[in-house]
Amino acid sequence: MSAEHRNGAKMMGVGVGPGDPELMTLKAMRALGEADVIAHFAKAGNASHSRTIIEQHLRAGVIELPLHYPVTTEQPSCSAGYRDAIKDFYDGSAAAIAAHLEAGRVVAVISEGDPMFYGSYMHLHARLSARFPTEIVAGVTGMSGCWSAAGMPIAQGDDVFMVLPATLPEDELVRRLADADAAVVMKVGRHLPKLRRALEKSGRLPRAIYVERGTMAAEKMIPLIAKLDDEAPYFAIVLVPGWENRP
Amino acid sequence: MSAEHRNGAKMMGVGVGPGDPELMTLKAMRALGEADVIAHFAKAGNASHSRTIIEQHLRAGVIELPLHYPVTTEQPSCSAGYRDAIKDFYDGSAAAIAAHLEAGRVVAVISEGDPMFYGSYMHLHARLSARFPTEIVAGVTGMSGCWSAAGMPIAQGDDVFMVLPATLPEDELVRRLADADAAVVMKVGRHLPKLRRALEKSGRLPRAIYVERGTMAAEKMIPLIAKLDDEAPYFAIVLVPGWENRP
Repeated sequence: MSAEHRNGAKMMGVGVGPGDPELMTLKAMRALGEADVIAHFAKAGNASHSRTIIEQHLRAGVIELPLHYPVTTEQPSCSAGYRDAIKDFYDGSAAAIAAHLEAGRVVAVISEGDPMFYGSYMHLHARLSARFPTEIVAGVTGMSGCWSAAGMPIAQGDDVFMVLPATLPEDELVRRLADADAAVVMKVGRHLPKLRRALEKSGRLPRAIYVERGTMAAEKMIPLIAKLDDEAPYFAIVLVPGWENRP
Repeated sequence: MSAEHRNGAKMMGVGVGPGDPELMTLKAMRALGEADVIAHFAKAGNASHSRTIIEQHLRAGVIELPLHYPVTTEQPSCSAGYRDAIKDFYDGSAAAIAAHLEAGRVVAVISEGDPMFYGSYMHLHARLSARFPTEIVAGVTGMSGCWSAAGMPIAQGDDVFMVLPATLPEDELVRRLADADAAVVMKVGRHLPKLRRALEKSGRLPRAIYVERGTMAAEKMIPLIAKLDDEAPYFAIVLVPGWENRP
């Protein structure tokens, strides 16, 4: 490998947007063209969502590096077993990427949405950015994809906007929802009944919109008040639009 | 004008990203190619930032529709005079766009960042979306551009993330900053001294990063603690990264 190539080695955190391949940026397209190695995270046994988004742009001959989360992601995230397993997984993933960087390659880690906003890429960045050059390509977040697909203004003017995980205790959700002008609740999944109660108690239920797979072919979007079951995948989100004081 | 063209009339809210023209999406590029009219907001006497971002992609023969904010935007936003002037301005802007839509044209309203996230496009959408077809093209937000340019992971896992306007009273800023794992404070401008005190009182000052013109040529980014003056433009933001509990 030439010295120039070696010197050109870098890790790129590449946001590929919320799902619709057209919501990739020109910069992400350039990064895919430049990369020797494309790394992508996926649950063991599942296709990587980020890989599906970029699939039509995969160059022949590019090296693919799938990074499969350990099955322990279903454990409570506070357990020591989970933390050890996930730490080992990110350490191992970082080592695999470091080997490519040592060999002088450009590695693009593709990330759904934006890499620095709740993205797994951050775990690699924290481990490798002191040792190797890095470049971040910002992406359209999943939540932007959802409220745009819904045609739903989310926040304006002096609105306070919050992103809340549905994993919070019910009383915390009530308090924070009541304290926000606009909100997005993530990781809905099995927390939907609790979240519904919290939205009701905070007076936000009439405004809440339930979204699955925003911007993707299987997109599903309804007012939460019209959703009659408690079935929700982990990645479903709920939008609570703000902007009540319109001129 | 043909009936087909007339039927194809629509208003598009097109996010053009945080400043770097490469952070435009493929979908935004397609929208610019499709538009008969490109509308852009700007302060009276100033160039439109969104127009600067897309300038190299302006087609010959496209109709430009500049929408100049009334000078009264410097008034307190709670004053009746301000509200009347801004309401008249958005009413007039919507009427100008409606005239193009009635004539069967496709109108792209270009927006810095994401159109539905604190964007002026929302005022047009609220006025016109019941009368005409609309399409939203999500964009990379200004804040994503800033934390990506800073190489700064912002939020992870179960972090609570907040967007706060620096216009809030000092005690409100203290309370909310202390209650957030990660935050972005917008509209810094003349509120910088107050914001600095609020960050200090909430214990967030050591983590705070000051950013001007993220992803643009004149980008400026320093730890707030190292910024020795109180000069800040209106559009400067402060990032308070979260993700303290890293595996």
